[in-house]
Amino acid sequence: MRYSHFLGQTLREVPKDAEIASHQLLVKGGFVDQLMTGSWTLLPLGWRVITKINDIIREELDKTGAQEMLMPLMHPKEVWNRTGRWDDPGVREIMYQFKDKRGREFGLSFTHEEIVMDLLGKHTSSYKDFPIKVYHFSTKFRNEPRPRGGVLRSREFMMKDLYSAHVTEEDMYEYYWQIKDAYLRAFKRMGLDSKVVEAGGGVFTKNYTHEFQVVSPAGEDTIFYCDKCDFAQNKEIYQGKAGDKCPKCKKGKVAEASAIEVGNIFPLGQKYAKAMNVSFADKDGKKKYPWFASYGIGPARVMATVVEAHHDERGIVWPTELTPYDVYLLHLPGGEEAAEKIYEAMEKAGLEVLFDDREEPAGVKLKDADLIGVPVRVVVSQKSLAAGGVEVARRDNGKSTVGPVGKLAEEISNIYGGK
Amino acid sequence: MRYSHFLGQTLREVPKDAEIASHQLLVKGGFVDQLMTGSWTLLPLGWRVITKINDIIREELDKTGAQEMLMPLMHPKEVWNRTGRWDDPGVREIMYQFKDKRGREFGLSFTHEEIVMDLLGKHTSSYKDFPIKVYHFSTKFRNEPRPRGGVLRSREFMMKDLYSAHVTEEDMYEYYWQIKDAYLRAFKRMGLDSKVVEAGGGVFTKNYTHEFQVVSPAGEDTIFYCDKCDFAQNKEIYQGKAGDKCPKCKKGKVAEASAIEVGNIFPLGQKYAKAMNVSFADKDGKKKYPWFASYGIGPARVMATVVEAHHDERGIVWPTELTPYDVYLLHLPGGEEAAEKIYEAMEKAGLEVLFDDREEPAGVKLKDADLIGVPVRVVVSQKSLAAGGVEVARRDNGKSTVGPVGKLAEEISNIYGGK
Repeated sequence: MRYSHFLGQTLREVPKDAEIASHQLLVKGGFVDQLMTGSWTLLPLGWRVITKINDIIREELDKTGAQEMLMPLMHPKEVWNRTGRWDDPGVREIMYQFKDKRGREFGLSFTHEEIVMDLLGKHTSSYKDFPIKVYHFSTKFRNEPRPRGGVLRSREFMMKDLYSAHVTEEDMYEYYWQIKDAYLRAFKRMGLDSKVVEAGGGVFTKNYTHEFQVVSPAGEDTIFYCDKCDFAQNKEIYQGKAGDKCPKCKKGKVAEASAIEVGNIFPLGQKYAKAMNVSFADKDGKKKYPWFASYGIGPARVMATVVEAHHDERGIVWPTELTPYDVYLLHLPGGEEAAEKIYEAMEKAGLEVLFDDREEPAGVKLKDADLIGVPVRVVVSQKSLAAGGVEVARRDNGKSTVGPVGKLAEEISNIYGGK
Repeated sequence: MRYSHFLGQTLREVPKDAEIASHQLLVKGGFVDQLMTGSWTLLPLGWRVITKINDIIREELDKTGAQEMLMPLMHPKEVWNRTGRWDDPGVREIMYQFKDKRGREFGLSFTHEEIVMDLLGKHTSSYKDFPIKVYHFSTKFRNEPRPRGGVLRSREFMMKDLYSAHVTEEDMYEYYWQIKDAYLRAFKRMGLDSKVVEAGGGVFTKNYTHEFQVVSPAGEDTIFYCDKCDFAQNKEIYQGKAGDKCPKCKKGKVAEASAIEVGNIFPLGQKYAKAMNVSFADKDGKKKYPWFASYGIGPARVMATVVEAHHDERGIVWPTELTPYDVYLLHLPGGEEAAEKIYEAMEKAGLEVLFDDREEPAGVKLKDADLIGVPVRVVVSQKSLAAGGVEVARRDNGKSTVGPVGKLAEEISNIYGGK
């Protein structure tokens, strides 16, 4: 792709309200654009990153036997009435509810438990039909009182939500822990070190639920965690203070930290099925209620968290699994013709190349390359050609070498060795 | 994937209001589920088909240099006010408009011209920044007075909308015709014979626009087309009657037919840019307005149209490029153990297999296989094993052969030869 015909070229100005690094860098780098408070366009660069995040989530979920589908975003009041959540004050606070011209009432999706349960009621009847594991990537609308941090907390955002239904509580929890592991694997692949943190149920359930938190100064949550074992709780339920001995392993000390919540999982139990009277016939023909759980990840928030974890003073440093392009190619004076040929050859070889073909000063082009943060930068200039070919530089450690064009593919594949 | 743990198993009943084949078959086959009038869940089977449709569209658009992104669905009134469309009676008729608790006014996306133009205003300034070609797959909401035909006309549906902006009218039209060809290629790959039909501008533009129409008794549009050349117009603008001599080639006769609109393209010109005062500096520094066009395809409607074109009295007959799975594997008595092994081997070999592992009568399983319409059915039974292996049957022509398990992969790849 040529950078000259690109919607979302880098900006010189930092948005005034951008206090955290990811907000500044994603806007400046041309990854996202604000339509209004709490509402963002994922520009082509940002969308490429989100696509890679989504593909990783998809791969990890499909391994557990989950099926992707797509549910509607506009929900009839009637379905939400079946659990009584339509009139729940907590729900009314964040759900956009409105009437059409004929007076019918609708709510915009802020979650999909009721819709999945409605589907289960229509499509399952016997214990043989379970387990059911379905997910979708779709838009959520939440009337947040204070959207902040760019795409970290928005009023409209994409979410991957997974729902599972089982014949027994044991089955539900077996899958629940399987998804916990799938989430940890997914976040690790994205370059995030996430902690599984115990939390209360909020509007969803009275059981313990679990959050996936990434320690970061930009986080608006507070967590307490052990420096020796996997004990971690959020501040709503932790009953001690920082520095206490860990109540689980009795060895480590409990630390306090700001963190960003990148995912959460909820063992909802039979509450929704009972409220909506969705049941199945067990082996002996008896009426039973399925055990239900839900699991969420917000890909745009994940993208921002990755930027918080992977940037320096010059810009973003994308992990190889999430980079919007494999190679950032640019020409400096004298390298124009050679760069065109290299661009064509790399595209043909199946590499994803962002080609900065603009006639801009070297300073501008190199600065933009650092800001956008593709792991491999290839520079073609009169100087590099005189020195034997092209310069290949790594964004993470700054190491660069000049080598012949013929060795370029090998060089790049070495850098992506772990990919 | 095992059919036993599948959300959306086949239904015995046809919905009462289902008058056309695609509505009946997609519901009965478990591809879609109605949440409320005009609003549908794409169940896992349906979503797999949509994914293949979207990937074909994506491939054909990316070849033209277009970039994918994602724009918000909830739009502030202010942006729509800039073209005056917020208060346009035609727009108010189909756009859901509502206020949040603080009295701010929003509209749900029924199209995205204003949002793209707003982006262009923020991210382009020079002739060097053009052409811009961006698209997204996202949800559209239209308050249709009479949703019908299952997913053919819904109130909420996914749309692929592409927008392009150019420095001259010639550039715009050059790309416009390039997209016309890309659409024709995409529909052909999906097994659809589409006609490019001239149409008026509707609420979008006063220029000629073009619809992509597939002749079908289930269509609610009427088109007039020549039986010898590519002349075709919709009934709103055609000024003759069926049987007339073709006004273009003067040789063929004009036929009248019902048709389904699967796509449309609009050369919008400078109207939106002028209304929103979005301009660029030309080579000589003069202020100019970009030339703008938009291009839409509704993937769920495409899926229904494909079913209209490819079904028989027993069910759907998917074209190989769109089938939800490569193979429909089922066991009949005596074949259970062998089928399990074959399932594992085929999955390992990278085939997408839907494995009907239910203990149901042969009649039910074979009937469901026909209804769902995967191109290749593999049956493992005591009888087939005694005859030397497994039965491989084609859904389109019913031809079947019994052969050794070792030749299965070869057999299947022969059937998908053209894939």
